[in-house]
Amino acid sequence: MSATVRFATREDVPAILDLIRELADYEKELHSVEATEEKLLSTIAFAPSGGDASTTTEPISSSKPARCLVLTTPEGIKAGIALYFYNYSTWRAKPGIYLEDLYVKQSERKKGYGKRLLVELAKEVVAMDGGRLDWSVLKWNEPSIKFYESIGAVMQSEWVGMRVEGERLNKLASMLD
Amino acid sequence: MSATVRFATREDVPAILDLIRELADYEKELHSVEATEEKLLSTIAFAPSGGDASTTTEPISSSKPARCLVLTTPEGIKAGIALYFYNYSTWRAKPGIYLEDLYVKQSERKKGYGKRLLVELAKEVVAMDGGRLDWSVLKWNEPSIKFYESIGAVMQSEWVGMRVEGERLNKLASMLD
Repeated sequence: MSATVRFATREDVPAILDLIRELADYEKELHSVEATEEKLLSTIAFAPSGGDASTTTEPISSSKPARCLVLTTPEGIKAGIALYFYNYSTWRAKPGIYLEDLYVKQSERKKGYGKRLLVELAKEVVAMDGGRLDWSVLKWNEPSIKFYESIGAVMQSEWVGMRVEGERLNKLASMLD
Repeated sequence: MSATVRFATREDVPAILDLIRELADYEKELHSVEATEEKLLSTIAFAPSGGDASTTTEPISSSKPARCLVLTTPEGIKAGIALYFYNYSTWRAKPGIYLEDLYVKQSERKKGYGKRLLVELAKEVVAMDGGRLDWSVLKWNEPSIKFYESIGAVMQSEWVGMRVEGERLNKLASMLD
């Protein structure tokens, strides 16, 4: 018996929210979690309910850009999630996958489940003739960085992210009015 | 007379490819550009041809994740592009926009066109009730960083990107076979 990985259905939402909150707690950012079951239901492209073998989801769109893989242990525990969306490389003119959040329950660590989820995402990138599997990591999180490098990831240390959000976003949107 | 910004149509592809190549040349990476007109045609969600007022594009999908804004000067020159896709914030459970490439032709700089394209993207994030406008910049590109900070962007210096591509991606995809 091994773990199974499939697309999330609407019935997985309570478990997904629990795992998101556990991850935020680990990063000492539980107060930042604004996600609710209702918000997740309206922003993730789910697989049809009622079958573990689902290979398709609802169409992705501007309001439903996210997809989610759920890993279930042989004992039936929903132990891990990979939340991701499709990205794009201009120079390659190819799609890819950006992994927004990967999390495995504390009690189910050291069983290869994180690697399993990353392998499934790599398979999806290859299947779509995509170019890249990307994600971000906190610079101080050395154990994770070592693990990621061990499975073939290369650190993009010459790039830094820029972000506009909250009141600054409204200000930018109306800057030329 | 001011510049106009609209979604790209299929007829814009030659101009888009020219601008992509000019940007890569500026970053001393022209040899890395694998994009062709054909590849761009099959990976960008375009607006219907024949009208500058288009506000919709083809559906986005795993094979067509990208959208593209084109800025045309009052003289009719296609002077700038913003290539982007929809991203997702788990904690907010909200969509957003990731700007993959922003470029304004060398000969059309200092006219506020870069800012104009960023403002249009910020408007789209606000309109979709999204959370964030994100992009990346090369760490050594201080003039761009100063410009981005002047319009409200905050550097995400605690995060670093990880990437699996090429042969490493195939290896990861088959790691558990």
